[in-house]
Amino acid sequence: MKIVVTGGAGFIGSNLTDALLAAGHDVTVLDNFCTGQRRFLEQAAAQPSFRLVELDLLRDDRLVDTIDGAEVVVHLAANADVRFGWDHPGRDVEQNLLVTHRILEACRTTGVGQLLFSSTGSVYGETDVIPTPEDCPFPVQTSLYGASKAAAEGFAQAYAEGTDLRVTIFRFVSIMGPRYTHGHVIDFVRKLRRDHGRLDILGDGTQRKSYLDVSDCVAAVMSRIGQPDRGAVFNLGTPEYCTVTDSATWICGRLGVEPQFVYSGGDRGWIGDNPFIFLDTAKITGTGWQPRFSIREAVERTVDYLLANEWLLELEP
Amino acid sequence: MKIVVTGGAGFIGSNLTDALLAAGHDVTVLDNFCTGQRRFLEQAAAQPSFRLVELDLLRDDRLVDTIDGAEVVVHLAANADVRFGWDHPGRDVEQNLLVTHRILEACRTTGVGQLLFSSTGSVYGETDVIPTPEDCPFPVQTSLYGASKAAAEGFAQAYAEGTDLRVTIFRFVSIMGPRYTHGHVIDFVRKLRRDHGRLDILGDGTQRKSYLDVSDCVAAVMSRIGQPDRGAVFNLGTPEYCTVTDSATWICGRLGVEPQFVYSGGDRGWIGDNPFIFLDTAKITGTGWQPRFSIREAVERTVDYLLANEWLLELEP
Repeated sequence: MKIVVTGGAGFIGSNLTDALLAAGHDVTVLDNFCTGQRRFLEQAAAQPSFRLVELDLLRDDRLVDTIDGAEVVVHLAANADVRFGWDHPGRDVEQNLLVTHRILEACRTTGVGQLLFSSTGSVYGETDVIPTPEDCPFPVQTSLYGASKAAAEGFAQAYAEGTDLRVTIFRFVSIMGPRYTHGHVIDFVRKLRRDHGRLDILGDGTQRKSYLDVSDCVAAVMSRIGQPDRGAVFNLGTPEYCTVTDSATWICGRLGVEPQFVYSGGDRGWIGDNPFIFLDTAKITGTGWQPRFSIREAVERTVDYLLANEWLLELEP
Repeated sequence: MKIVVTGGAGFIGSNLTDALLAAGHDVTVLDNFCTGQRRFLEQAAAQPSFRLVELDLLRDDRLVDTIDGAEVVVHLAANADVRFGWDHPGRDVEQNLLVTHRILEACRTTGVGQLLFSSTGSVYGETDVIPTPEDCPFPVQTSLYGASKAAAEGFAQAYAEGTDLRVTIFRFVSIMGPRYTHGHVIDFVRKLRRDHGRLDILGDGTQRKSYLDVSDCVAAVMSRIGQPDRGAVFNLGTPEYCTVTDSATWICGRLGVEPQFVYSGGDRGWIGDNPFIFLDTAKITGTGWQPRFSIREAVERTVDYLLANEWLLELEP
């Protein structure tokens, strides 16, 4: 199939691109290389069925022409940083909502068959229902990031209702694994390389989080391509959670260091941090998908990857 | 208090403005007169504590200065037409979401204490839970209008979580009564004045809808001014519903005509029409608010108002 992957030079996008090419699809990656990495596409670029278009999804007039002719669009491009929303209060609106709306319009006007969209468990805010199913009580948004993704989901669903576009929405937990570039694991690894003896941790370390390996994430996304979803929502995660201290301990173990953990305190790492994320994944596992990696394995694979790719640790955090 | 009302020249906004002035508040109305009516503000304009600023909330750089110094902002301005979203697929994004985000930013940067925001029961899409409480299962959006209001709610909640702004969100059913300018009652009255003998009705007439009189709506909004809401959501409606045929029958009765009803058929009037809207209002009635008018009274008061203000019937529909 002819498939467009937005954000295809990013962590998840480049893994998906490689998997789609391996499965025999034609893949066009759209990326502005704001956080994407050209090195992540080296393997893909060697394939004749791969095409790269460098553009700004928010403003570039070539968007419609670029999408025209695709059967499927996987829209992964986003501002994925939930922590620094208040430094740039318009960024989530622009990068996550307005860009998604431009993609939806481009899909509608060119007759793309299916859009698959990466949303987030952050749309559940601080729900009381844990593990959280897709149809948990109407949540209250607690971050600009979560609000922007929830907003984009809603527009995507309205397009699925009002046009011929089929829409599949995934609510990801945090994703780990090869090509990971952003989040607490890389932050901790960077800190521990500077100082083996001390690790500063935001919050009190008891925040409970869920992670999923990128290969499992990619397999789930691929399993829905071609399905007749009309705005269907699937949580993606593992059937478990860990604490921030668990994760820090695994990371230190993999690095062979034994620092003192110094907690900033409080049950939240930052404004809008959710102290307990654990998604109910019965709906996606009911389709036959299962994660292959545990949370611990996903975290450890991430550390191994970073150690084998030190150039990533040198990037601007 | 110093209160800004966006969309203050509109149907609900002008009623609220009059009520706020009568209660002794200073009121600044912001409106672009796209759907607002100067005649609705004639009574207000006679008050020294009233000020009108004509501006485009989406683009005008004076927005922040205009809001600066206000203690409360009631944000009512919106594209309120759920039916014609697909004729202008970007309008709901711009007028309902981006404008709300500009208002939120203006409130944050100027230190406004409280924002009250008019959302809609349309955010519930086609929920199975009826009457629908505020915490019903996470809904699937079925219209651009509903999606845009749900999106704006989410950002308002994120601001309530991440800043000092207090936020109150109302999910309105359709509002009726004096200064009503838009919706099925005015459509039906216009049609019946052209042809007493026949009334074309979208859908099969069994769609069940809820309506609330504007005076009751205004009383509910005013009851939350000064309350320490942090993203609180309140449904606003009456504890009843009617069918489209009921409403048509009451309208005809008030006009003294007996047309043949000609149904377009189907259980929906248009794409995204919700065949059953009935909100659970236990949360707002638990605060002491009660509607004074029944649905039938609200519809009949609307017809009476339109007959007494024929200039509205002459406006571009």
